[in-house]
Amino acid sequence: MQTVQRSPDQDLNASASPSLTLAVPPVTPGKHQVVIIGGGFGGLYAAQQLGRADVDVTLIDKRNFHLFQPLLYQVAMGGLSPGDIASPLRGVLSAQKNTRVLMGEVTDVDPEQQLVILNDGRIIPYNSLIVATGMSHFYFGRDDWADVAPGLKTVEDALEMRRRIFAAFEKAENTHDPELKKSLLTFVIVGGGPTGVELAGSLAELAYHTLRNDFRHIDTTDSRILLVEGMDRVLPPFPPELSARAKADLEKMGVEVVTQSLVTDISGHKITLKQGDEVTTLKAGTVLWAAGVRDPGMGGLLAERSGAARDRSGRVIVNNDLSLPTHSNIFVVGDLAHFAHQGERPLPGVAPVAMQEGKYVARLIQKQLKDDTLPPFEYKDSGSLAVIGRHAAVVNLPWAKLTGFPAWFVWLFVHIFYLIEFDNKLMVMTQWGANYLTRKQGSRLITEKVIEKVDASTSEG
Amino acid sequence: MQTVQRSPDQDLNASASPSLTLAVPPVTPGKHQVVIIGGGFGGLYAAQQLGRADVDVTLIDKRNFHLFQPLLYQVAMGGLSPGDIASPLRGVLSAQKNTRVLMGEVTDVDPEQQLVILNDGRIIPYNSLIVATGMSHFYFGRDDWADVAPGLKTVEDALEMRRRIFAAFEKAENTHDPELKKSLLTFVIVGGGPTGVELAGSLAELAYHTLRNDFRHIDTTDSRILLVEGMDRVLPPFPPELSARAKADLEKMGVEVVTQSLVTDISGHKITLKQGDEVTTLKAGTVLWAAGVRDPGMGGLLAERSGAARDRSGRVIVNNDLSLPTHSNIFVVGDLAHFAHQGERPLPGVAPVAMQEGKYVARLIQKQLKDDTLPPFEYKDSGSLAVIGRHAAVVNLPWAKLTGFPAWFVWLFVHIFYLIEFDNKLMVMTQWGANYLTRKQGSRLITEKVIEKVDASTSEG
Repeated sequence: MQTVQRSPDQDLNASASPSLTLAVPPVTPGKHQVVIIGGGFGGLYAAQQLGRADVDVTLIDKRNFHLFQPLLYQVAMGGLSPGDIASPLRGVLSAQKNTRVLMGEVTDVDPEQQLVILNDGRIIPYNSLIVATGMSHFYFGRDDWADVAPGLKTVEDALEMRRRIFAAFEKAENTHDPELKKSLLTFVIVGGGPTGVELAGSLAELAYHTLRNDFRHIDTTDSRILLVEGMDRVLPPFPPELSARAKADLEKMGVEVVTQSLVTDISGHKITLKQGDEVTTLKAGTVLWAAGVRDPGMGGLLAERSGAARDRSGRVIVNNDLSLPTHSNIFVVGDLAHFAHQGERPLPGVAPVAMQEGKYVARLIQKQLKDDTLPPFEYKDSGSLAVIGRHAAVVNLPWAKLTGFPAWFVWLFVHIFYLIEFDNKLMVMTQWGANYLTRKQGSRLITEKVIEKVDASTSEG
Repeated sequence: MQTVQRSPDQDLNASASPSLTLAVPPVTPGKHQVVIIGGGFGGLYAAQQLGRADVDVTLIDKRNFHLFQPLLYQVAMGGLSPGDIASPLRGVLSAQKNTRVLMGEVTDVDPEQQLVILNDGRIIPYNSLIVATGMSHFYFGRDDWADVAPGLKTVEDALEMRRRIFAAFEKAENTHDPELKKSLLTFVIVGGGPTGVELAGSLAELAYHTLRNDFRHIDTTDSRILLVEGMDRVLPPFPPELSARAKADLEKMGVEVVTQSLVTDISGHKITLKQGDEVTTLKAGTVLWAAGVRDPGMGGLLAERSGAARDRSGRVIVNNDLSLPTHSNIFVVGDLAHFAHQGERPLPGVAPVAMQEGKYVARLIQKQLKDDTLPPFEYKDSGSLAVIGRHAAVVNLPWAKLTGFPAWFVWLFVHIFYLIEFDNKLMVMTQWGANYLTRKQGSRLITEKVIEKVDASTSEG
């Protein structure tokens, strides 16, 4: 997903365009230009919906692939490879002749001149702009925790988590110090939302099943896995009975669920929790972060440039058609949009919301070109689901609540169904079949941090 | 594979052991201790052969996985994910109760006290030592070329190649400068051995088929792919008629094959070739290195410690039972061994040689424990093979030479057969099936260079 990086000395109030000259010509001069920033669920579904529309579409992303983020935790646990859940954007959109993909980083938007500016100086003019850049981690103001408690947004994040988890077992195997061993086999996951629950459940599967015969000096079933949540229950957006079931399932798998606990400090290999007045510090070799999101910068830029208002997390507050109150041709979809026209709370930052918003805006733009319009956006909640482990999930449908094996089966089906590409579906199904049968995780390689090198071949462009 | 890193101020003539204290106890005290350094084909096959022997086995590797190197070029081209061709060493060996895996980096060997020393100070005593650490790239003395022309030995190398190849197309798509565009679409592969041929063939498949509809401003079929070889033909170890067929197949696929040409300079985006007296300089955005190997350090260390002789590339010259002339309980197998007891030339650095050598030494050690011995090692050449592209390969069997589709089919079968794990076989077969049918490469994500971070959770051990 797209994030914004600006140099601190850049004057945000000056229009950045006059000094730049690399205007990117439209694919078809005279056509209505739709520019989409971000190739996540919101941006990609908008682009696909516009595939046969009488417009030119330019999809801009920093990365060359769409990432199926709901399965990213499985990459972190070594169950899947990054390639299994990533789809090259060019490949996905190659048959759409009206669509081009630009790999680049957006550094500025000029709503008056209707331009998007990239970090290499390229300028892309638009008639309609769809911003779908998503959110990033938030450490509640403690950015120094980022190094000790990695989050899970990018492929690199997932590989870093994987590296830390498997390295912890390796180090525990190597040490003679019982204290250190205990600390290395203690894993704390902060945040009891779907990502936290999925990480805790799959880590339990790993420690208590997959790896149990692989070491000689440690017993991986001695591992301690804690899931820490600030609210009074895990999966707060779900109905209380499903939260209770998720907690019971996690505990059955060996996870300690600690609710109403706030993290007050993480440093070195210690994490400090505050539960009411009680303060506990425990040694943990690995802390994984699955709590809090914030605007990575694009929301702030857009607000500054357009005058749009934002909420506390930095999400941009949108009209009931997902446009900005100040600019009817700029739309925000997905996690970055604060859409509060349906009930008291804004829509949650989940894939189905982003998909539906992306499609809606694409249809709205097509209507507008015919001087027509659409009724306000309405999110059709087809249910939410979170997986806990083998044969355990919770599914909250408008007409039913599922748990256990049926929920797990629904979860599997839905995730396979929504994977973007044919070969990704096939690979994930095959790998899951193999993992299920063998209880192994084939992709648990610890890859090295690649040392930054002078890269002559890429410094050119 | 294992490489040796030594600090320059370390006195190699002093025994490193007195200052170190972390002796790793044997699994079973009193048992014959076999220590294997390196988990590539040689080391892993030795370990597996010793699975039911009355010895303790300790396999040491820097990495936690075995890499199926013959398919690494497909990771570089985005056809496979690293996880598809990597097998966790612990997982592969978990059922062998007499075997332990140590993740660590060997910094010293003491043949007198029979100790292997790791960089963290751990000391592992051995009765028999098998060194199977392989070879690394060699730039013919021009180590500065490493940055501009990456080689292909590790997963990180493959991902770096992948990043450069796909980034070159992205940059070409973005530039207005026709000169720069041409340079970015020029790919030079140095070295016409199996790896170079495989890289050139699969790059042609990528540029001329897979990506042809993915870009809007460039035509990827304009790409120029050169394969440069110093000898008078590609695949020099193969019979001349197979080399000729490989050249014809490559040319049919669009690769320019340049033989009898030496690289005299690579700098920035220019590569200079010398063919006889003719010197040509051409602009190439991407140069890939598939020529030359050398001892990464372990051969030198072993020679220094044991007095063993080495050849020009740094390979350790071994007896006809693969032991060192100076120490009969130290064996060298795989690419690092110079075994010249069969014909004029030493055995080539290919997987089947390493596998057979590893197994031989394992059987020899078992015999020796019973005061018995084995006849000298003899390599059974069951043939060699190199793939060129879709439906094109060359196979040199003792009783037949195959080309075209039959050779390609044999190549497929052999590679699937030798993949270590059940789920890797399944994944590679599935991915290949999907790639074959769709002509897409699903794993072509450009991942970022991970910036070196302070990593508190791993600085502990």
